[in-house]
Amino acid sequence: MTPNRQLTAGQVADLVRGRLVGRSDVEIAGVASLERAGPGDLSFLVSSRYLPYLERSNAGAVLITSRFGNVATGPKTFIVVDDPYTALARVLTEMHPPPAPIWGVHPTAVIGRGVCWQGRISIGPSALLGPRVELGEGCEISPFAVVETGAQLGDQCRIGSHAIVCGGTHLGNRVTLKPGARVGTPGFAFASQGSAGHLHVSHVGGCYVEDDVEIGANSTVDRGSIGDTVIGAGTKIDNLVQVAHNVRIGERCLIMAQVGLAGSTIIEDDVMIAGQAGLAGHLAVGRAAKIAAQAGVIGDVAAGSTVSGYPARPHRDVLRQAAALKRLARITPYLERIVETQR
Amino acid sequence: MTPNRQLTAGQVADLVRGRLVGRSDVEIAGVASLERAGPGDLSFLVSSRYLPYLERSNAGAVLITSRFGNVATGPKTFIVVDDPYTALARVLTEMHPPPAPIWGVHPTAVIGRGVCWQGRISIGPSALLGPRVELGEGCEISPFAVVETGAQLGDQCRIGSHAIVCGGTHLGNRVTLKPGARVGTPGFAFASQGSAGHLHVSHVGGCYVEDDVEIGANSTVDRGSIGDTVIGAGTKIDNLVQVAHNVRIGERCLIMAQVGLAGSTIIEDDVMIAGQAGLAGHLAVGRAAKIAAQAGVIGDVAAGSTVSGYPARPHRDVLRQAAALKRLARITPYLERIVETQR
Amino acid sequence: MTPNRQLTAGQVADLVRGRLVGRSDVEIAGVASLERAGPGDLSFLVSSRYLPYLERSNAGAVLITSRFGNVATGPKTFIVVDDPYTALARVLTEMHPPPAPIWGVHPTAVIGRGVCWQGRISIGPSALLGPRVELGEGCEISPFAVVETGAQLGDQCRIGSHAIVCGGTHLGNRVTLKPGARVGTPGFAFASQGSAGHLHVSHVGGCYVEDDVEIGANSTVDRGSIGDTVIGAGTKIDNLVQVAHNVRIGERCLIMAQVGLAGSTIIEDDVMIAGQAGLAGHLAVGRAAKIAAQAGVIGDVAAGSTVSGYPARPHRDVLRQAAALKRLARITPYLERIVETQR
Repeated sequence: MTPNRQLTAGQVADLVRGRLVGRSDVEIAGVASLERAGPGDLSFLVSSRYLPYLERSNAGAVLITSRFGNVATGPKTFIVVDDPYTALARVLTEMHPPPAPIWGVHPTAVIGRGVCWQGRISIGPSALLGPRVELGEGCEISPFAVVETGAQLGDQCRIGSHAIVCGGTHLGNRVTLKPGARVGTPGFAFASQGSAGHLHVSHVGGCYVEDDVEIGANSTVDRGSIGDTVIGAGTKIDNLVQVAHNVRIGERCLIMAQVGLAGSTIIEDDVMIAGQAGLAGHLAVGRAAKIAAQAGVIGDVAAGSTVSGYPARPHRDVLRQAAALKRLARITPYLERIVETQR
Repeated sequence: MTPNRQLTAGQVADLVRGRLVGRSDVEIAGVASLERAGPGDLSFLVSSRYLPYLERSNAGAVLITSRFGNVATGPKTFIVVDDPYTALARVLTEMHPPPAPIWGVHPTAVIGRGVCWQGRISIGPSALLGPRVELGEGCEISPFAVVETGAQLGDQCRIGSHAIVCGGTHLGNRVTLKPGARVGTPGFAFASQGSAGHLHVSHVGGCYVEDDVEIGANSTVDRGSIGDTVIGAGTKIDNLVQVAHNVRIGERCLIMAQVGLAGSTIIEDDVMIAGQAGLAGHLAVGRAAKIAAQAGVIGDVAAGSTVSGYPARPHRDVLRQAAALKRLARITPYLERIVETQR
Repeated sequence: MTPNRQLTAGQVADLVRGRLVGRSDVEIAGVASLERAGPGDLSFLVSSRYLPYLERSNAGAVLITSRFGNVATGPKTFIVVDDPYTALARVLTEMHPPPAPIWGVHPTAVIGRGVCWQGRISIGPSALLGPRVELGEGCEISPFAVVETGAQLGDQCRIGSHAIVCGGTHLGNRVTLKPGARVGTPGFAFASQGSAGHLHVSHVGGCYVEDDVEIGANSTVDRGSIGDTVIGAGTKIDNLVQVAHNVRIGERCLIMAQVGLAGSTIIEDDVMIAGQAGLAGHLAVGRAAKIAAQAGVIGDVAAGSTVSGYPARPHRDVLRQAAALKRLARITPYLERIVETQR
């Protein structure tokens, strides 16, 4: 995508508070990987794995960390920073500032009685705000989004197209819901009546989504049954994730695509859960734990640990056991024969 | 959430046909877990696991089963019932009756030619009913919901916001589709033409969803290819579940979030499938079988059995094998050496 | 579903270029499986597994391959073809031609400034085209679909109800998005700021979806971060699939429901990925590889190979190891004792 603003290498260095090695007047018209970058592009080196690409790269300038300082010589222009990825994020935001919202209320939007907001607001075509919805300053409600009766949003929330904020939901400031996210839906709870089927249990708990949370496209977050569902400040949730009723997620967690969290499970701060992992209900996951992709967690997870597999256990054990099984499978008939003869 | 109606402990006991032990005049203003309940709250004890919380609880009254009858003494007020969870469901519905629908057709709704319904109906903003749709009495069609040409709905169906009922779909009575559910979409079937790609196979089968079925947010149910897809009466399906073409699900099944059912698989009555489990196509799952979370089922499952793991097998075997592998991994080098020397 | 057009067995044979064995004047009023077919139905035999059903079948005519030629005698009418499934697809399309689109722009649609299209177009109720969207000839935009600012669509694209085509997305010709698909959403990328949380990394890459691609209901495809996300011509993607930023999928791949592809992974042509499989990021999957259901792929996959399990490995090894473990679990205590005595 052609950026809206161009920079020189010197301006990039100022922006990211980096040290410039080379020519400050190199003009940066875009950002690209080392492989694809041309002389007008800024690139970046985040891992030694990509060092071989650096030499061949035609990039006009390269963001690197001082760890790779020894390469920052020669004809190329470098910008040395603590964290090239953070620097890249800042440059991208500078070069591609998000389009300004169209402030105002589109004539096709439907606004319920008693809706109130602060300052300016952007409400897109056919968006729907139910009665008594409260919004902070600078919220953007995209086309076909629904904010149901009485829901509360803080400042600068961005509700994507077709996203739904159900009644009983409270969003903090700067919460982003991507397209198709459903937040605060009644959960899945039934009291069995035997052959008479399942009696639905009403959900009357809240759904609290704190500041700076992002919830991905088509993800679903159920409201609490009688307690609350809580997603802590700064936590980021990817696409197609399921968060069941009464789940409590701490701050700054990263939850990748297609993860499923069953009811009442508690996740502490800074936990990372990789794609397609599933956690049973009523568990506790300690601070900064890492849960590998596709892990099936059926017990508590200790703070700081890394688990994988089904049933999830320390990742080191999973690898060791997989290696052992591979070796044992080769000698299984011999082992059986030995047992047979020694019995 | 503040309830709409308050009750006394005596009224609760009458409502749930329970035996009151203690003061009938305790005023119940809400429902909460034992830990969080205050003197104005009703709480409940469903498992002996939570007995320690009971003593410390400040709950005004507690629903318990006679199994825990020995604790139903002392200063607290108890309501003794057969099943506290069912009683809780009844109390919640009494205290938080669902808001009455806004009967009538919103002016922004689009109604096709030949649509007909019985009695009263609630059609929300921007909802869309295609030509010749038939609805029973008391249906609620939420904002942005789409009911396509010729689809048929029974009485008191609730079609959530953004949900879609495709052509060829027949819903029974009291069917609930949560927001974003897609029911009756054409399935995934192609005849390979080698290097010329894949030829789409038209889907002309029906999609029958029987009485009292609930389908979760953003779940997808494909219509039959040439036969029908069927979801039996009283079955409840959670969020983000995939039901492929020609699947036949029996009555009163519980299917948790993110489960995937491949084409033509048959699930008998009262089956429970836990989160993220996947079933291959053309399988048969017998009555009342239980399929554990994340199980990967690639063969038939016997009635009444419990399976887990990949490939799914009796859960007992999975646990035994996991324990065995853990022990074997510790002695693998020794076993290899023994085989080496005895070969 | 009652077909719109009826055929005789002779007309079917002509249509599919098959050899008729039996009566050409059998009237075909529908298509059904061997079990369910009546005298007015065409049926088909695709696998020897269903041979027992053939004899009992009441089908008026049966599509078979010459491989089963020896059964194509007796009272029944047969149509012998190379590939009965392809023939079936052609017959279904002939008998149930898709309803002609309603050409024109519905009065409730919202069309941005500078939108342009070729020839005729069908834009349904409440559909939304942002500024400067470009469409080819004969596109169908369903109700509540959103095509965002500047997105480009080729000829005869079909955008399902509630589907979203985000800015930066380029669709080829005959691309189908099923209901609720989200294509070109910004991906999940953050630069960690430690206790200060996660800094969002803007997505400025494109999303290229080539000719004849189909994307399933509620599936999500993220746009590239700084490179592009690409889905190759003829590839078919089922429901609830996640395709992360910068993924590159080749041509004619089949990707089943609930699969997850993490960022920057490269899938070559003709790959098949079964349901709920997950692929980690930055991997390469070689041409015509097969990835089994629920496989957890954390390394490259060789062209032509078949992998399964977690971590994914050759399917043959997975089965062998599962069998070995079953046997070893029975003798684990004996093996421990032997090691103990020989240590």
